[in-house]
Amino acid sequence: MRTLLTLIALALTFPATAQEAAAPVTPNSVVAEAAPEEWIAIPPEDLLVMELAPDAEGEPRRVVIQLIPAPFSQPWVENIRTLAAAHWWDGTSVNRVQDNYVTQWGDVTEEKPLPEGVVAPEVSYTISGVHRMLDAAGSPNLSPDAAAEHTQFVAGWPVAAESMRLHAWPIHCYGYVGVGRGYAPDTGTGAELYTIIGQPQRHMDRNLAVVGRIIEGMEHLSSLPRGSGELGFYTEEDAHLRTPILSVRLASELDAQPTFEYLDTSSESFARYVHVRANRDDAFYTVPAGGVDVCSVQVPVRAVSE
Amino acid sequence: MRTLLTLIALALTFPATAQEAAAPVTPNSVVAEAAPEEWIAIPPEDLLVMELAPDAEGEPRRVVIQLIPAPFSQPWVENIRTLAAAHWWDGTSVNRVQDNYVTQWGDVTEEKPLPEGVVAPEVSYTISGVHRMLDAAGSPNLSPDAAAEHTQFVAGWPVAAESMRLHAWPIHCYGYVGVGRGYAPDTGTGAELYTIIGQPQRHMDRNLAVVGRIIEGMEHLSSLPRGSGELGFYTEEDAHLRTPILSVRLASELDAQPTFEYLDTSSESFARYVHVRANRDDAFYTVPAGGVDVCSVQVPVRAVSE
Repeated sequence: MRTLLTLIALALTFPATAQEAAAPVTPNSVVAEAAPEEWIAIPPEDLLVMELAPDAEGEPRRVVIQLIPAPFSQPWVENIRTLAAAHWWDGTSVNRVQDNYVTQWGDVTEEKPLPEGVVAPEVSYTISGVHRMLDAAGSPNLSPDAAAEHTQFVAGWPVAAESMRLHAWPIHCYGYVGVGRGYAPDTGTGAELYTIIGQPQRHMDRNLAVVGRIIEGMEHLSSLPRGSGELGFYTEEDAHLRTPILSVRLASELDAQPTFEYLDTSSESFARYVHVRANRDDAFYTVPAGGVDVCSVQVPVRAVSE
Repeated sequence: MRTLLTLIALALTFPATAQEAAAPVTPNSVVAEAAPEEWIAIPPEDLLVMELAPDAEGEPRRVVIQLIPAPFSQPWVENIRTLAAAHWWDGTSVNRVQDNYVTQWGDVTEEKPLPEGVVAPEVSYTISGVHRMLDAAGSPNLSPDAAAEHTQFVAGWPVAAESMRLHAWPIHCYGYVGVGRGYAPDTGTGAELYTIIGQPQRHMDRNLAVVGRIIEGMEHLSSLPRGSGELGFYTEEDAHLRTPILSVRLASELDAQPTFEYLDTSSESFARYVHVRANRDDAFYTVPAGGVDVCSVQVPVRAVSE
């Protein structure tokens, strides 16, 4: 539950005073009251568990990534499963931390051979044929996207579409994971990954592949020291700051499988959650905004204890 | 120049390959080519210099805040000057770091007496009578704000306004500084400050006071360990993680005054910068977004060497 609380506890005040007032309807309270059947289990083959080297105090640092499912998954997601099954990331590192942009990890030598079959797919950042999904789940409180005329949540993910809705694409939000690459038309393989640690940039959408999001341990990637090199890469002088990656595994390969659920984005509780997010009106916030950016609505995710 | 580079160097690639391609028009190149007269000096009384305790490696950590000027400054900004002149923050600390939300600093005991005259002002988060300023500087590439129907840059700052434009207000973006407070209608004094370290939340606007932005050393606040307590506050167990604040001074009080300039937001170069940000089309980005969120356009700021 720690991750969920971190994501959705947004009031700006002191714990002392927070206790004093009665609790009106908040995004938190809506999520807490969601019915059990509104939560959807995430399949273990969509969960990637990354163990970083322990921190300076010897505490373990586990990061859990939810991979994006069909119809939004693309060849990169299958590459990522292949790389995890081959234990390819074991012994690699976090090599880049650029403030207000991304934390990026992979093979710093750029020479480690990839498992057979892992190749950069042809460009296909957008998905077609999802008309019916897009029509089914409107989100009237979402403000228009900078680029697209239409944003909404589909099957648990924030998605943008052109006004004609012929093509849709998953978008970059805080904590979302994408595929690093070289210059276009290279699309990357999925071996080099990054996550957004600041204001999401709409110009990344349709130019880079969104393959998942971090649902636990984001703070282990967002609070790393920034690199002093160009684009936030650690330099040779900074090399000691590269965080070693001990292992990356699909949850389905682990003995003790972590279990997570997300709040069904077509549920009544999710619609209410978006509405309350767009119209905060409680003891702390008294001027409702009247709208909310799609990326300001983090999809609630919770760990399920065995 | 380090801060500027960090803010605007956004291509997602490796340094090695970045050298190879010719450089087409990018936000970076537009800023680099701006004419000297398009840069505006920031007055020393608008610069606040905060010295945090050195980091684990003994390196100094300096944070420079630009205070918001008239007509958007409000009584909080004058309070902040009074607090700095009284050296009130010396010996206080960073007490809260909530992932994807805020880093907050001030007096952890909440009992330190305030200098005379420093009181929470009556609520006035919005400013009226700025019609002409709002009309003068349109920003056609900015996408509509989640809440307001109109966002633009005025006198170097991102501002939102209602559709009738009778009222305007400065908004929260990454690295922007606001005033912590208790429950409404308390508005805070300015003694407790925070900065945005993730996706800016539009529901903060008009509910909390924007008083400035960090123009150097943001990484010293964004990369701090997250607090384990409610809302990211450090708990008693976490107490050793609170970063001590050695001093906070107005630059006008310092012997060695830092000097900064920002790119005039009514200049041709700034308009071009916004346009290029909204329509990235270069060797790396080949699908222009066609729009940009006001908070994705960081106002270029540069240090001037003496």
